[in-house]
Amino acid sequence: MEQVLAKWESLSSSSGAFRFLNINLRSVGQVMFQNNPLSGILFLAAIAWGSYVAGVPQVAIAGILAVVVANLTAQWLHVDTESLHSGLYGFNAILVGLALATFLAPGPLLWVYVILGAAVSVVVMLGTTNVVKPWGGALTFPFVLTTWLLLLATYGFSGLAGAALPTGNVVTAFQPYKGSPLQLIDLVQGVFLSISQVFLKASGIAALLLLAGLAVSSLAAAAFALGGAISAVLTAHLFGAESDLITGGLLGFSPVLTAIALGTVFYQPSWRVVAYTVLATVFTVIVQSAVNVALTPFAIPALTAPFVLVTWLFLLPRQRLEGVPEGARDIEKPAAVA
Amino acid sequence: MEQVLAKWESLSSSSGAFRFLNINLRSVGQVMFQNNPLSGILFLAAIAWGSYVAGVPQVAIAGILAVVVANLTAQWLHVDTESLHSGLYGFNAILVGLALATFLAPGPLLWVYVILGAAVSVVVMLGTTNVVKPWGGALTFPFVLTTWLLLLATYGFSGLAGAALPTGNVVTAFQPYKGSPLQLIDLVQGVFLSISQVFLKASGIAALLLLAGLAVSSLAAAAFALGGAISAVLTAHLFGAESDLITGGLLGFSPVLTAIALGTVFYQPSWRVVAYTVLATVFTVIVQSAVNVALTPFAIPALTAPFVLVTWLFLLPRQRLEGVPEGARDIEKPAAVA
Amino acid sequence: MEQVLAKWESLSSSSGAFRFLNINLRSVGQVMFQNNPLSGILFLAAIAWGSYVAGVPQVAIAGILAVVVANLTAQWLHVDTESLHSGLYGFNAILVGLALATFLAPGPLLWVYVILGAAVSVVVMLGTTNVVKPWGGALTFPFVLTTWLLLLATYGFSGLAGAALPTGNVVTAFQPYKGSPLQLIDLVQGVFLSISQVFLKASGIAALLLLAGLAVSSLAAAAFALGGAISAVLTAHLFGAESDLITGGLLGFSPVLTAIALGTVFYQPSWRVVAYTVLATVFTVIVQSAVNVALTPFAIPALTAPFVLVTWLFLLPRQRLEGVPEGARDIEKPAAVA
Repeated sequence: MEQVLAKWESLSSSSGAFRFLNINLRSVGQVMFQNNPLSGILFLAAIAWGSYVAGVPQVAIAGILAVVVANLTAQWLHVDTESLHSGLYGFNAILVGLALATFLAPGPLLWVYVILGAAVSVVVMLGTTNVVKPWGGALTFPFVLTTWLLLLATYGFSGLAGAALPTGNVVTAFQPYKGSPLQLIDLVQGVFLSISQVFLKASGIAALLLLAGLAVSSLAAAAFALGGAISAVLTAHLFGAESDLITGGLLGFSPVLTAIALGTVFYQPSWRVVAYTVLATVFTVIVQSAVNVALTPFAIPALTAPFVLVTWLFLLPRQRLEGVPEGARDIEKPAAVA
Repeated sequence: MEQVLAKWESLSSSSGAFRFLNINLRSVGQVMFQNNPLSGILFLAAIAWGSYVAGVPQVAIAGILAVVVANLTAQWLHVDTESLHSGLYGFNAILVGLALATFLAPGPLLWVYVILGAAVSVVVMLGTTNVVKPWGGALTFPFVLTTWLLLLATYGFSGLAGAALPTGNVVTAFQPYKGSPLQLIDLVQGVFLSISQVFLKASGIAALLLLAGLAVSSLAAAAFALGGAISAVLTAHLFGAESDLITGGLLGFSPVLTAIALGTVFYQPSWRVVAYTVLATVFTVIVQSAVNVALTPFAIPALTAPFVLVTWLFLLPRQRLEGVPEGARDIEKPAAVA
Repeated sequence: MEQVLAKWESLSSSSGAFRFLNINLRSVGQVMFQNNPLSGILFLAAIAWGSYVAGVPQVAIAGILAVVVANLTAQWLHVDTESLHSGLYGFNAILVGLALATFLAPGPLLWVYVILGAAVSVVVMLGTTNVVKPWGGALTFPFVLTTWLLLLATYGFSGLAGAALPTGNVVTAFQPYKGSPLQLIDLVQGVFLSISQVFLKASGIAALLLLAGLAVSSLAAAAFALGGAISAVLTAHLFGAESDLITGGLLGFSPVLTAIALGTVFYQPSWRVVAYTVLATVFTVIVQSAVNVALTPFAIPALTAPFVLVTWLFLLPRQRLEGVPEGARDIEKPAAVA
């Protein structure tokens, strides 16, 4: 594996085309925090498979187009080379492309929208990073903000119809599930689809490809992804969430990202960090439900907003805590605190 | 009084149990900015009395449980000792506990919710403090954010029914009050309930206990609380607010906190500061009405969000103003501006 | 022209009354970023004409009252003299006055509201400037926030009826325009009204006066205003926006401000900056549609929020980009990044 990656890097440094391919693959890997082109390939395979079985190949194409446009925009804006090479300017765009093609009907204006959204996501990435640098990364906030604005706007445009967008509604008391209770197999399905829904896919095979993509880069990341999905499904079940949301993985994809981010990226693993991460993961399920409810009148999906909000909340104390979570000490402290 | 407090502090430093009790009492006092255990005792009496007469003893219990959980969580997270001892990590949690038990139906999951909310409020407190340190305190923002998210989420959970939560609605033009006009006695009632509603209680006796708790710690705080309540009720009446909101104190509890915060905590009293505080207090009534309207589609209560927003807005200029409000000069200037 | 301005300044420095008049005229000019009293006079003429032909003279009076109250409040708060003299504490207030008198029914409480809103807008201006100083100006955020809160609150007050405010509604799929398609003349009208709607007016003559007011101060500003309006109308037409919104200039006034701000104020003009500004202007049209939709349940107008959001997003990278947009290098870098 190491040798393959070394060969890949030498190829990449000798050819402009390979370098650009490398940037785009790392961008795909960065959706789950993996700065690794092999992760990117496996994640792409998951996206392609998920789009194929769902009969929406244009979704995968929109994702790929968006990541390419974003990395071209980033170069045009002369962003710093290291972040560009690590894929940090492309991972939001691929999600923008996937989401727009998932929620909007196909047509020429969809592609205008994908290109526009991808370019804007780079600007938002640069801006968000400036604001949140003292305590963490931009995460998928640029994806969420850009996509929300683009989707909301379509309710005022006749050229862009929402294929999969609902009609707004007022918030009403939840009507509990009336059907047969959940079986263990339903919960297992919920765990796997929670992982594949990170890329807006409902496919067990895509989930396995994603876990493989994580494992080739970081076994800890794969473990925390799985653990996050299990915690999320159990928490949602405990609180009596709607069973379709649980089994479809729709309450679990944000917690999966929270678990990877807090457990393996920003803090060094330890028992204390595990406990802190479990608290954050459980709370992400609640925030997912809360954001779902809050967006009811606006008729747009929550995307990964719950992950961004909770991870920021749980990263913010890092600047101030002395000694806990232990990993915090290892991270360079910002010079000035906002 | 001084002697009693001195004796109390010596007791507190000699025994771990007393020290922890001390922290929790100061936490209760900090809801109204009083770092004083005696204020905490009187505030607790107000909470207990208000819960008893309303037939909801579980509300007081939830508040006490939450403050204890929060201070344990804070110790687990190794927060700084001075802020912990001053009760700064517990005052949001007691409000979380009171609000959850007020708005949700009793049941085992309510207690899970209270414990979770209390723990998360400490994380949010740490994070918010990091962001707002340059210009002021976190105020009750951690309480507002945590409780809003927990309450919103219940609309998606069948395990947690909202006993006192409405159904969402669209914003419509206000239908003016049709009944008999307000008498002076109604306005007086509104003034006192504005004070007791800081702790989500509608009780004149609770209001008197709260004023006593303020007075033992700071006569100025008691005076500004009363003055803030009077300004709020008169302003709401002038603009023609719904009379039930006025007499129930529901447009006045945020202004009471604004008046104490700006008039006695962050600025040094002077005629100029009084005028500035009156402007802020009047504007808090407007923001309270605005937030009530804005939350109509989401079917959640405004809590103290208007107080937090207006106090932050009126504290932000502190960094920049030279010489006004006069007190501003006495406060240490932050090294860097966010 | 230069001589007239020089004479004006010497008059202004010799008399307190002239100085105060000068401050207020510059405040009006600053709505479109022109620190120029002659621009202010021409903008006032546009406001007066637009209010006169629409039969609402109280709107112009409310705007003038608000700017005077704001500049008096700013002096009372001892703001820095240079910003005060440049009109930076008054331009939000004139918009507050215009908007309140446009959307609310006339009556004594309207004037209380205008005075209160104007005073608060200065506090919000001071606070916002503190937060956003590292990357740009407060823009019209103080106007948007203050006016939103004041308008929302009226739904809870019987004393302040919304003459031009709708009833809230849930978000539903857009019903495309059924009438005859737009002619070139309609699009030209949309371009001009996009300019006059910056001051909440629908008048071609007001638009010409505003362009003249820009041109006497900065030909580039006039050119970018016109270019921004044209881009906005074409973009809105391409996406199939409602034709009444296009021809009424209601999707174009925010893009006009974005174009002036990015193209001439914060960045130095160059082909690259032009391309960056076009991207931002096109995105402002989308955000305008998005904010219109998002505010449907709240029944309040978008005001210039889309301009503020997009301009902030496109200014934020300035701190970080090295070499692009080129103008960025010329601007003093902040010492600390929030």
